[in-house]
Formats: sequence, C-alpha cells, structure tokens
Amino acid sequence: MSYVKGIEEMTAGILPLDEGAMERAQQHLDQLTKPPGSLGKLEEIAVQLAGITGELAPSLGTKTVVVMAGDHGVCEEGVSAFPSEVTWQMVLNFLAGGAAVNVLARHAGANVVCVDMGINGDVEHPGLLNRKIRRGTRNMAKEAAMTREEAEAAVKAGYELALELAAQGTGLFATGEMGIGNTTPSAAILAAFGGITPAAAAGRGTGISDQRLVRKIEVIEQALQTNLPNPEDPMDVLAKVGGLEIAGLTGLILGAASSRKPIVIDGFISTAAALTAARLAPAAKGYMIGSHLSGEQGHALLVKEAGISPMLGLDMRLGEGTGAVLAFHLVEAAVKIMAEMATFAQAGVSGSEGH
Amino acid sequence: MSYVKGIEEMTAGILPLDEGAMERAQQHLDQLTKPPGSLGKLEEIAVQLAGITGELAPSLGTKTVVVMAGDHGVCEEGVSAFPSEVTWQMVLNFLAGGAAVNVLARHAGANVVCVDMGINGDVEHPGLLNRKIRRGTRNMAKEAAMTREEAEAAVKAGYELALELAAQGTGLFATGEMGIGNTTPSAAILAAFGGITPAAAAGRGTGISDQRLVRKIEVIEQALQTNLPNPEDPMDVLAKVGGLEIAGLTGLILGAASSRKPIVIDGFISTAAALTAARLAPAAKGYMIGSHLSGEQGHALLVKEAGISPMLGLDMRLGEGTGAVLAFHLVEAAVKIMAEMATFAQAGVSGSEGH
Repeated sequence: MSYVKGIEEMTAGILPLDEGAMERAQQHLDQLTKPPGSLGKLEEIAVQLAGITGELAPSLGTKTVVVMAGDHGVCEEGVSAFPSEVTWQMVLNFLAGGAAVNVLARHAGANVVCVDMGINGDVEHPGLLNRKIRRGTRNMAKEAAMTREEAEAAVKAGYELALELAAQGTGLFATGEMGIGNTTPSAAILAAFGGITPAAAAGRGTGISDQRLVRKIEVIEQALQTNLPNPEDPMDVLAKVGGLEIAGLTGLILGAASSRKPIVIDGFISTAAALTAARLAPAAKGYMIGSHLSGEQGHALLVKEAGISPMLGLDMRLGEGTGAVLAFHLVEAAVKIMAEMATFAQAGVSGSEGH
Repeated sequence: MSYVKGIEEMTAGILPLDEGAMERAQQHLDQLTKPPGSLGKLEEIAVQLAGITGELAPSLGTKTVVVMAGDHGVCEEGVSAFPSEVTWQMVLNFLAGGAAVNVLARHAGANVVCVDMGINGDVEHPGLLNRKIRRGTRNMAKEAAMTREEAEAAVKAGYELALELAAQGTGLFATGEMGIGNTTPSAAILAAFGGITPAAAAGRGTGISDQRLVRKIEVIEQALQTNLPNPEDPMDVLAKVGGLEIAGLTGLILGAASSRKPIVIDGFISTAAALTAARLAPAAKGYMIGSHLSGEQGHALLVKEAGISPMLGLDMRLGEGTGAVLAFHLVEAAVKIMAEMATFAQAGVSGSEGH
C-alpha cells in the first residue's frame, strides 16, 4: 500500500491559509489611498499571499517556472499538427534559451527549470533534470496512458522537486510544459472531472485543421470509453487519460502548496494539472494563482472547474509557462501595493462617504 | 478661425502605420519557434509597434505615464462618493510618490508626469506641470462644461506636452487621470458618441450607492438634453459634456500619434479620451494600445466604440493610469519576443503541417 500512503502524505501536509494574516492584509488595503476594492484582483492576490506566507508584504525570493516535458502515445492517432520529435527539439530550445518562455522568464527576472518527465527519446544536457518515468505514455485510445504506479511516481517526482526548489530559495513558482499532443489528455481530464462532452472540452491546440479536430474529439471519446476513468478517484483519471508532464505538474502544485509557496498556473495543460491537484487536495487551491485565459477552447470551463481566476486575456495558446511568467509581474505588483502605497492618514486624503 | 486650424494641424500630422514594416514583423513572427499566432495579442502588439516605429524590435526609450487632473462642476449634483478636494489631495499624493500609480510606475520602471489641467484650487509644487485652463469645468447638467475655446486649449496643451516629452526621450506613453466626478462626463461622452442610453453608459465609479447611481444617470440625461452635443462634431461633445483632463488626454493621444509613439490607454476615463481622439483623427487609433478592462460598467462598450482591445482583466476601477502602467510589461514583452526568440531554423525545430 505504498501508493496510498504516498499520496496521503503529500496532501496531508497542505495546510489552510492563515486567516488572521488575510484579515490584517484586508484591513491594510482598506486604509490605502484608493476606493475600497478598486485594485480588484491585485487586492485579492495581496490577501492570498498574506494567507500563504503569513506576512503582509512578503519577500517572494527566487521566481521559478518549471517546464515539464513528456510525450504522448495518443499522437499515433493523429491529434496534433506537429510531429512528436518537436517535444525534444523544443526542450533543447528551452535549454539554449531561445523559446518564448525563456524570453518572457528573463523579462520577469525568473529562472527556467526544465524537467524530462517522459520524453520519447534520450535528451542529454547538463541543464535538463532527468525525472523520466517512461518514454512517453501509452496510447490512451487503446489502453491506460499510465499505470497507477507510473502516475504516482510522476506526481511524487514533481512534489519532491517543488520541495527541493523551495529549499533552494524559490518563493514564487509557475507551471510550464511541453509535450506534443498534450491538449488531448488535458481535454480528456476536463471531460472526465467536469462531466462535459469531449466536443466541449477539446480545442485546436497548436492550430489543427477542422478534420483533425473531429478526429481529436473521436479519440478522446474512445479514450474515455476504453478506460472509464473514475472522477471520484483523481489518480485513476490522471493515470488513464493524463500525461507524464501533467502528473509531474500535479505533484509540483502539491509540493508548492506543502511548502506554503504560491504557484502561478499557466494555460490549458497546466490548468488540467491544477484541477487534478485540487481534486486530490482541495486545500491546494489556496496556493494557486491564475494567470491567463488561453485561446484554447475549453480553457474557460477548465479554469472554472479548477477554481482559478485568470488575469490576462491575450489569446495566447502556446503553453510552456508563457502566460504564467507574464503574470509574475502582477503578483509582484500586489506585494508592492502592500509595501509602498500611502494610507489616507499618511497622505492627508479625505475618505469616501462611510469610510 | 484659429480653432479649426489648430485641430486640423494636430490631426493632419498623424500618418498611417508603416505597412511594409508590419509585414516584415509578421514574417519574422511566423519563423519563431511557436505555432503561428500562438502568442496572440503579444504578436499583434509586435506588429503594431513595427508599424508605428518602422523597426522590428524598437528601443522604446523612456516610459512615461501622464496623469492629468481636473475638477468637475457637475459634482455639485452629488454624483461622487468622494468630495471634490480629493482631486488636489490625490495630486499631492502623486507628487509624493505614495499613490497606486506611483507604486506601479516604479514597478514598471516608468516616470509619472502630473499635470494640472483644471484643478479647482491652487496646487503649487515643483513637480506639477501647470496647464490649468480654468478652475474646474462648469456644471454640465445646467450648461456646457467648457466653451469650445477652452476645450481646444486643453487639447492643445496635451498635444504639445506629448511632443515635448517625445522630444525628451519618451518612447512609450500611458494615459492617467485624477478628477473626482470624472466617470460622469466620460459616461456622457460614451452615450453621445455611441448613441447609447446613460443607464447603459454609467457605472458606480469609485463605488457609489444605488441611490447615487440613479442620480448620476439622471444628471447625464439632463446634461445631454441641456447641451445637445453633436456626435458628428467631436469637439462639440468634448466641450459640452467632457472635462479638462479628458480634453488634455485627448490631445496627449493626438500628440503621441503625431510623434509616432505608442500610447497605452488606461481605463474608463482614458478610454473616453481615446474615443474622442479617434473621432477627431481616425488614424490615431493605430497608435493606441489597450491595457485593461475596467470593473466600471460601460467600459466594455467604450473600448469597443474606441476600437481598442484590453489585455488585462483585473476588475480594477481606480484610474490614475494604474492599468496602463501594468500593461507596459506586456508591451515590452512583445518587443523582446521579436528581439530574442529563436527561429525554427536556428533551433533546429520541425514546423507544423503546411509550415
């Protein structure tokens, strides 16, 4: 029974937010020179960060986007416009610093950590963390994508990496991923947990044709019928219709939450991991910060189901963590509002009626 | 006829975007290691910046948010939750660096320039630019808020300030404002240009009660009936139901466009100025960049009417330029994508089908 104990340990360590600190944060916000609540989601994040860290204007330390890569057996069904080898090719691009997530992470002053969770090939590079569980998942249209043990091992690897990075100074995480075909398992996860149809859950991913989209929906239907994932058992859903990088990110989110560190959730695939993490440990939701609403159809349903609230509407649909690292600037803005803004009393400004 | 000549001169200098540069920018974007179009609005901004500057990855120079302040005679009708003196009190807060816009501008590495366009009082401070046209507008519920000459003078002052700042090195502008009561004229401008009802155009501003909202809608109806602004004559609308800071921002936008500099448009009041600028000079639209969708009711209609596309959904409703300076990070991200991302050929990554 090592599996059950493993997941239980990971989720039991996630504590609720510090309500006293959240109340103090709200009181401070209401004294600042602005109409109450007028900074909207920045105020919500400020309160959330207080609840996570126990401090009103926490120092967030190192910012890290963790980009997890894995391949997908389901690609043999023709669900993506790109060939599978693009997964490892793009990982080399991340390691060379030339991908969008590298550019945007540098812009945000953040580190990029690349992890091989299950690339279908051998990528050797001193900058790549090897947490490979297997060379890609199985084809979920025909059988379970992973065994339960494989999925658990991937979650554990992500969890332990979060603890390691937190111990090394990361105070603000973001999720990122690379895996050709991975909008297909993400849509399957949404359909399974949310009880919605594959047609509502699936979108065009990297930009597939009408014909491929029809095929993708069929494939997801087939995967759900073949595997019958049980939405009451999140590990069952993750193993049967998930992916290795999705499982790794699920663990990363649980690990960040256990370490009391905020984690910014990127787009469609990352949100599928966030939903899985939230089903495994509802308390983990308190540590998640939404970033952007992706252009991928189904993402609006997925963020609602996962209980996160995106801030950016850029019609992005790239993944990698690109939307999440763009949101770092907003998270830091919330901290600076708490630390630097004058109060009504300090500035000698009159309040509104009733304040 | 100095008035007509003045506005004509300001608008005639606004040239269309450089289509050749935009085409080259699009071609470059399509070679970068990402599915075509997958960076969404960041790609649109990259193309727009190329069209504005003629360069693919322009150096934007100094970033400046111009915060224009003015008072509103219509406040005597009881349309705001805050007393009018908060306008000058907040201007002193801006000058001391303690307001939200100061915090967020520092976070973005931007300058704050404060301008007295029509504060109802004498604020003397070495950091405050004096472009005061008069001490607040007249009460538009009873008469025109400004004479046409006053409105023109305010537009000109904003226009000339943009030229001055551009000459001093500002390469990226943002609009900001402070003026207790100024969502009321902004809603009147939207109603007048958009042909919509005051009830659809008006919102709660800084957070007014149901009772005050009913009064605000009545006041806007009365202002429109009393003054009969002509939507075919944008200066007539601006003078009769606008404000001094709104007129100043209208000019600032025209001046930025004339100088071929991008200008990020903040929330509800700034977008009313952007709509006025776009009606005076449709070519000015090409220089405007949307920032956030405000929590103020009516803003969604207003951005549509003005033809700008917000990127941030933070439910902010503070004004000052706070949403616009948060968007500076996104504009700079677009430039860095153009400058720093690897192409498919450079990174040895396979393209998608048909690419």
